[in-house]
Amino acid sequence: MRDRVERLVALTRLVTARPGVQISLMGLAEALSVAKSTLSEDLGVVRQGLWRAGLGDIATQVGAAGGIRFTPALDRQWVRQALDTLMDALGQEDRRLGGGFLYMTDLLFDPALMDPMGALLADRLKAAGPEMVATVETKGIPLALAVARNLGVPVVLIRRDHRLSEGSSLSINYLSGSSHRIQSMSLARRAPVRGARVAYVDDFLKAGGTARAAADLLGEFQAEVTGVGVLVATREPAEKLVTHIAACLEWDEATGIMPAAWVTLRLATEAGTEGDDGGRNA
Amino acid sequence: MRDRVERLVALTRLVTARPGVQISLMGLAEALSVAKSTLSEDLGVVRQGLWRAGLGDIATQVGAAGGIRFTPALDRQWVRQALDTLMDALGQEDRRLGGGFLYMTDLLFDPALMDPMGALLADRLKAAGPEMVATVETKGIPLALAVARNLGVPVVLIRRDHRLSEGSSLSINYLSGSSHRIQSMSLARRAPVRGARVAYVDDFLKAGGTARAAADLLGEFQAEVTGVGVLVATREPAEKLVTHIAACLEWDEATGIMPAAWVTLRLATEAGTEGDDGGRNA
Repeated sequence: MRDRVERLVALTRLVTARPGVQISLMGLAEALSVAKSTLSEDLGVVRQGLWRAGLGDIATQVGAAGGIRFTPALDRQWVRQALDTLMDALGQEDRRLGGGFLYMTDLLFDPALMDPMGALLADRLKAAGPEMVATVETKGIPLALAVARNLGVPVVLIRRDHRLSEGSSLSINYLSGSSHRIQSMSLARRAPVRGARVAYVDDFLKAGGTARAAADLLGEFQAEVTGVGVLVATREPAEKLVTHIAACLEWDEATGIMPAAWVTLRLATEAGTEGDDGGRNA
Repeated sequence: MRDRVERLVALTRLVTARPGVQISLMGLAEALSVAKSTLSEDLGVVRQGLWRAGLGDIATQVGAAGGIRFTPALDRQWVRQALDTLMDALGQEDRRLGGGFLYMTDLLFDPALMDPMGALLADRLKAAGPEMVATVETKGIPLALAVARNLGVPVVLIRRDHRLSEGSSLSINYLSGSSHRIQSMSLARRAPVRGARVAYVDDFLKAGGTARAAADLLGEFQAEVTGVGVLVATREPAEKLVTHIAACLEWDEATGIMPAAWVTLRLATEAGTEGDDGGRNA
């Protein structure tokens, strides 16, 4: 029989290891070799400890398919540090390429940077209740996966070309705002997105031509885009082709790269109170 | 002042929330409003609780850049359930496409399936000490990111085409085993992979032509492929173009899809002993 304190430590880890995923109470009782009544008491202590420290909450679902589910609070310090790293990196002279492009593939493919950005965007996009996250290959994929993991939903991948390995697909052509060329994208007919509420995620958004085309393509599957999340959006043009856009960072010629206004507000700690990150900004 | 038990719950969550990432002791002491001596005692309890339950271990690094780092044990039940789901899904008749292709994009882009596969492959590949994970776009990206997160390293993305947004790139052509066509791949000159030890990850491996080409391309950057991890490998041809291959699943015409032998061994629970998943298989 394990000591109670050690059992609570193990229970805390088991409950919080996979945010958003339902855990069966019977499985937990078996794993810790305790009676269900003891487990209930222990869960109360764990819930209170997490809640008071501002680390998240445990919801209980009763009935046959019963279990518990942990929802972490947004870790604002973690997000703030990643934003700082991204702003520093994107300001480096040697990232400027010809044609107004910026090299950022290495940043987009670093989980240590995209995971906190995904948590931030999921926190913003979740109110609309998305059932899937969609992205157009390739560079927005890590951010889309991070958002999806935080929402507990899968990603639907829109391809640039029609591939053999996708089977029959629906394709659309559109005029890209940045390259002023006709581009195409396609989605497999068997992609399980029919009728779903979808959050669209990408690395970069200027006029929103790609996002608009993705929304149109998803519309052919009776799927509805309920929100758009991107890492960087340009301030110009102010008029975009899609609505409900949440950008982590905004860019314009004059001021360079800065967090969006909603991000600054979301990350602000009120003086004298303990924020949802347990006062780790003190 | 928080109750000690609740403080231990909060500490457990703070320590285990981001596996592989170093956490500063001073930051933890501030977050929980405790003295460093109290924190040290508490960490001892948390470490023991996690260790005894087979959930992982906490390593301490002393000195100026000191801190702690949590390494989770492989959750074998989680991996086993994801493997079962994948085998069931891949056996479905309606996934068969023309030309011997199998539709699996939806499975490859579901974090609930690729995260446990990433944990399994990282557990196998980590001994070689990879400093980065490489993949060739597109379908292996989610698995590559999951492996990278578990190893605490970034992903280097090899492109199919040379893109403007990558700057100057190095390209190679190779003969694809599956399509019998000349294909190409390219890597940005500024990709931060020079001299690194690299794990190559992809969704599917047959003869290994793509993996071989990726290793050659990485070799041009003085980077060395120390291991190859894939979701599915075919048994035929037995002779592959790369070595040190770890596949989660193996496929052949006769027996269909099965976990690889090393996977079955890694997931086996010895009778009467408590496995590294805290006996949750009991």
